[in-house]
Amino acid sequence: MSIRKPKKLLNDPRDVPEEQLQGLIAACGGDLQRVDGYSAVIRRDIPDNQVAVLIGGGSGHEPMFAGYVGKGLADASALGEIFTSPSPDIIIEAAKAADRGQGVLFVYGNYSGDNMNFDIAAELLEEEGVITRTIRVTDDIAIDKKSDRRGVAGDMMVLKIAGAAATRFDSLERVHQLAVKANDNTRSMGVALSACSLPQTGEFNFELADDELELGMGIHGEQGVRRQKMAPADEIVTEIIERLCADLPFVSGDRVSLLINNLGGSTVTELLIANRKANQLLTERGIIIHDTLIGSYCTSQEMSGYSITLMKLDAELQSLYDAPCHSFAWRK
Amino acid sequence: MSIRKPKKLLNDPRDVPEEQLQGLIAACGGDLQRVDGYSAVIRRDIPDNQVAVLIGGGSGHEPMFAGYVGKGLADASALGEIFTSPSPDIIIEAAKAADRGQGVLFVYGNYSGDNMNFDIAAELLEEEGVITRTIRVTDDIAIDKKSDRRGVAGDMMVLKIAGAAATRFDSLERVHQLAVKANDNTRSMGVALSACSLPQTGEFNFELADDELELGMGIHGEQGVRRQKMAPADEIVTEIIERLCADLPFVSGDRVSLLINNLGGSTVTELLIANRKANQLLTERGIIIHDTLIGSYCTSQEMSGYSITLMKLDAELQSLYDAPCHSFAWRK
Repeated sequence: MSIRKPKKLLNDPRDVPEEQLQGLIAACGGDLQRVDGYSAVIRRDIPDNQVAVLIGGGSGHEPMFAGYVGKGLADASALGEIFTSPSPDIIIEAAKAADRGQGVLFVYGNYSGDNMNFDIAAELLEEEGVITRTIRVTDDIAIDKKSDRRGVAGDMMVLKIAGAAATRFDSLERVHQLAVKANDNTRSMGVALSACSLPQTGEFNFELADDELELGMGIHGEQGVRRQKMAPADEIVTEIIERLCADLPFVSGDRVSLLINNLGGSTVTELLIANRKANQLLTERGIIIHDTLIGSYCTSQEMSGYSITLMKLDAELQSLYDAPCHSFAWRK
Repeated sequence: MSIRKPKKLLNDPRDVPEEQLQGLIAACGGDLQRVDGYSAVIRRDIPDNQVAVLIGGGSGHEPMFAGYVGKGLADASALGEIFTSPSPDIIIEAAKAADRGQGVLFVYGNYSGDNMNFDIAAELLEEEGVITRTIRVTDDIAIDKKSDRRGVAGDMMVLKIAGAAATRFDSLERVHQLAVKANDNTRSMGVALSACSLPQTGEFNFELADDELELGMGIHGEQGVRRQKMAPADEIVTEIIERLCADLPFVSGDRVSLLINNLGGSTVTELLIANRKANQLLTERGIIIHDTLIGSYCTSQEMSGYSITLMKLDAELQSLYDAPCHSFAWRK
């Protein structure tokens, strides 16, 4: 085990969530509006009579979640401290700021803290006359039981479909229905080579030996499916693609969006090499790659490693997936 | 000093440049075409009678350089081994594949190996009737003497202007002239927190103590202006912005594009916190931020740290900067 300490260029570590949110808003040239007094943003031009889509969760996964607030994606984002669910009041204020009388869809990853806080927010909002629906993203196949699965980079796929449906003024029921379908069609699995550290503690949240990797690790360092010795990239990518394809299943003739997501500290070199193999394997299986995304979309601080996500696109999902969107982290 | 070994998910390290190029081509869904037998790509749809813009240099800085091949940016890219200039034959074949009879502009960073190989290629191409012009990017202000300055992330700013000018069918002389102007208007400086490692050696190429950073370090680990103890992010960003503004100088009323470029291993968190301060400082100085780019644009493998680039936009440069572009790494 190498002795290594986290090393990041920060100010006061307690200010990280606030300062990075300010940095994001500054980067978006007026497209984002702060929800006064809360760790939340909305987009500035939410049309009247549109269902509002709200994405949220703990900070620390940047550009997830606030980086997806923009036209065709999320209308609002509620953010917690690093790796901590936003409290109900943040969710409530973000939802109220974004609501245009047609209700709010909550999109978030399936974690107990988020589930509890978003559910409390939904109840309190209902009392105030704001209708909500919820989709908990469960794309991480590292856990067997579907209802227990975590939401990881697949959040952005589900959001893309929901955001596009809301943008064409679908009803809350319909946007929710399509988000459920998107989640049902999305699968992810990751591999980690090193730990992530929390700014507030200045410590890594787990240890991984110099010659080991962990397959299926979660984006907060949750246990994956296996620790093993380092192996060639092609071997790891092959196992991930095989597991993803077996799970849905994805079969010959299916059309997919493919995402190679940097968990934080991997080089673009490694992501491209992963994509080379993933592309080969999917093509060999007769699976059509409709679109490829490669980069830092849902991170875990400086964790080295990546996740691979596949979303199966039928004609309905494909037309929503192809719709334009414009945010800090995703532009189409 | 912590004992740390490089840890990346690769196959045979000698295959890294080739495999990552294949991964990039696979990600671009048919937009890129391999120059057969060479470590080079062109875009598939270069119009007749257009000046070709060729960008190139060593591999290892992904998505620089091949990630910028696409409409409105580069028409071709010639790539060397990791941190090594492409040989003249690669440059020559890439140039010939991209040339549409109007000549080829070479855009690359000012390094002796690149200078030599691109100059040899230019001479040999002239003998074959292919006219070339050259712009060596010199944006890194860590070196005092302007003509000795290295090209770093500013390459992409100069390329953006040249690519937009070529796309509107400007002549080779005019495209070259505008690229020179773009380079004259662009300044960068970086800060490194950790070393980069070369896949082919499996070793870090320098050492940096756990409690130290280096200001002004180059993208191959070249010496910067100073090593010092770790400091708050705002302090470092302030020094970089002050140095950049003093150098050109950038003054009140100037309009700029601002790039916060991940050198590889920094978290998005750190980039956003850097942007928060850079935005504050520039605004205080009366400098207008026309556009903000944040992400991995010109990396140095897993080096932790970032560079900040400013390009001053007059009306002519701004209209070229705002023109649409479409490549793996930059879409407008």
